[in-house]
Amino acid sequence: MKNSKTIFFLALTFLFQLGVAQEQQGSKEDQFEPSPVNQPGREYPMVNAKGQVRAQIIAPEAKKVQLDIGGVKYDMVKDDKGVWTGESAPQDEGFHYYQLNIDGASVPDPGSLFFFGANRWGSGIDVPARDQEIYELKNVPHGAVEKILFPSESTNTSRTAYVYTPPGYHKNPKKRYPVLYLQHGYGENETSWPNQGKANLIMDNLLSDGKAEPFIIVMTYGMTNEIEFGGLRDFDIKPFQTVLVDELIPYIDDNFRTKANKENRAMAGLSMGAFETKLITLNKPEVFSSYALFSGGTYNPEELKGRTKPDLIFISTGSKERPDAVKTAVSELKKASFNAVSYVSEGTAHEFQTWRRSLYQLAPLLFKTQK
Amino acid sequence: MKNSKTIFFLALTFLFQLGVAQEQQGSKEDQFEPSPVNQPGREYPMVNAKGQVRAQIIAPEAKKVQLDIGGVKYDMVKDDKGVWTGESAPQDEGFHYYQLNIDGASVPDPGSLFFFGANRWGSGIDVPARDQEIYELKNVPHGAVEKILFPSESTNTSRTAYVYTPPGYHKNPKKRYPVLYLQHGYGENETSWPNQGKANLIMDNLLSDGKAEPFIIVMTYGMTNEIEFGGLRDFDIKPFQTVLVDELIPYIDDNFRTKANKENRAMAGLSMGAFETKLITLNKPEVFSSYALFSGGTYNPEELKGRTKPDLIFISTGSKERPDAVKTAVSELKKASFNAVSYVSEGTAHEFQTWRRSLYQLAPLLFKTQK
Repeated sequence: MKNSKTIFFLALTFLFQLGVAQEQQGSKEDQFEPSPVNQPGREYPMVNAKGQVRAQIIAPEAKKVQLDIGGVKYDMVKDDKGVWTGESAPQDEGFHYYQLNIDGASVPDPGSLFFFGANRWGSGIDVPARDQEIYELKNVPHGAVEKILFPSESTNTSRTAYVYTPPGYHKNPKKRYPVLYLQHGYGENETSWPNQGKANLIMDNLLSDGKAEPFIIVMTYGMTNEIEFGGLRDFDIKPFQTVLVDELIPYIDDNFRTKANKENRAMAGLSMGAFETKLITLNKPEVFSSYALFSGGTYNPEELKGRTKPDLIFISTGSKERPDAVKTAVSELKKASFNAVSYVSEGTAHEFQTWRRSLYQLAPLLFKTQK
Repeated sequence: MKNSKTIFFLALTFLFQLGVAQEQQGSKEDQFEPSPVNQPGREYPMVNAKGQVRAQIIAPEAKKVQLDIGGVKYDMVKDDKGVWTGESAPQDEGFHYYQLNIDGASVPDPGSLFFFGANRWGSGIDVPARDQEIYELKNVPHGAVEKILFPSESTNTSRTAYVYTPPGYHKNPKKRYPVLYLQHGYGENETSWPNQGKANLIMDNLLSDGKAEPFIIVMTYGMTNEIEFGGLRDFDIKPFQTVLVDELIPYIDDNFRTKANKENRAMAGLSMGAFETKLITLNKPEVFSSYALFSGGTYNPEELKGRTKPDLIFISTGSKERPDAVKTAVSELKKASFNAVSYVSEGTAHEFQTWRRSLYQLAPLLFKTQK
């Protein structure tokens, strides 16, 4: 009897402790922390491990203030000091654009850093992700991101590009590198990959782990925002193709220590940038050897007939997009003897977490045999 | 008689045409154009040649909306569609920080690009200036601005700096360059000189005109915002001096093609950055050969006694600040046989137009005899 009582008591204690542990875990998940992409020293906006966003703003005279994220507007509540606070439903892991709405005015949240997306510079938030260490700033050798202005005759102006050079680029004045041309999506621009995409930190971390060959990444404006959304059918790739292939690539090859040949040149893009990547790689088979589409279309063997097979075709998407279409396309390409790879980002949609992960997966596959 | 009538008539015609011309000029001065630092495709905010700022925002439910610029809040007026519009009094030429106030909430204007100043990322406006061509984007060879992450043991992190390399830097892999270390002011950061300061465009234009020797500019965060404003008396320069002199300079000399000696190293700063420049150049006479203070203090001969004279001391200010103090100080330095130069920016105060012009004046004086 004594034993069974003891066992019962121990079991009870165990169950109680389990309950406490779960409750603590619960409360840890609920606990809000400042978003990692806040303005310096700002406590709000905050995020928790569930992916909820909590925003706060002082607006003593306002009648209605809302947090506008993921296509939903969440009412915020005013305290007696005129401070409005509100929370969203859980968001997917990773980066999201958002804004505040104050008595009908849609404005950036002054607490967050600003990012170019949705055709504007506006607020962004970074929800904790289980794999966030892939793009964290770590104590490893860092490459640099250079803003260049390159001459463009076809558009009669100086155009901007960002150039990632890997750690050691400046120290080894004789080493030459392959180049990845990496495009943003509709409503974004050349700052989107280095800012919210964290392309440089992803590369620094991969290189520090010895998981990828060092290469240069060039990111320029894809001229995608000059079309109306939905006007894709009439999209003419020629103006951007001219800028990229006839103006930017020669400038990069002239000013950076590149391996200036097809074998050492890849193109990738997300969404509208994937659409551009597909069109340009198909139009210009002599320029790029590896092609990557993130959340934007696929290749089929028919389109690639009668030409040298690319070294790599990489097609990715979020699990909340259309993963089956990507898997099927890659399976068809493999059947036709293409070196094709698919990647599905678990639990993410048409947003930057899908694309950060896609770059992380793509990079180790590029330029494997440096020629 | 006929002649005098003709002359009278001609004179009348002339006066009439003069009147028309003046009226046209008047209306041209009043005419608002989009600010050159607006978000892509945005019409508002606008500026006119008088320096007035016109802002506009949709806020149908708001009770009160104000344009907050230059320490003054201007009431905006709502039309029947819920669009608020308002104008400021004339502002000085050049760049100004501003914000909107919507029912008590101070927020960035979503129409403008965002700049770091006043301890936040927020809206900025650029008022036309008679000398704006010195910082305009022109069809000339362009240098690049590189964002680097350098290791800092003393602060146990990777720190950010922006590095301007002049046109041709990448093309001449053997040429070495002098370096200017250029500091921002209180409430600003390492992005302020390349963004609102337009340091790269000022240099590109000077170099294209053959008015300056090519040099590298390094801009890092001066750690100035970690003190309370007014707490200057207790400001300890040591932490930043360690980062700059013991960590950043060796990193730059190791990773860029610099002329790594005192003769080819200058330091300049604006406001709080001038204060830092003065302290560090006095503490470390072996590191820099040219010193420049923009809108922040002066040197006197006593402070520089018993050491090798610097190659150049440059001290500048806006005419709306304290130009007499600068002129007097430089006159004293000259009397004591220092190579000292003063510059007063006409019609500007403690703002970036003063500092853009100061850099434009300073650059041609630096590294005249490349050693």
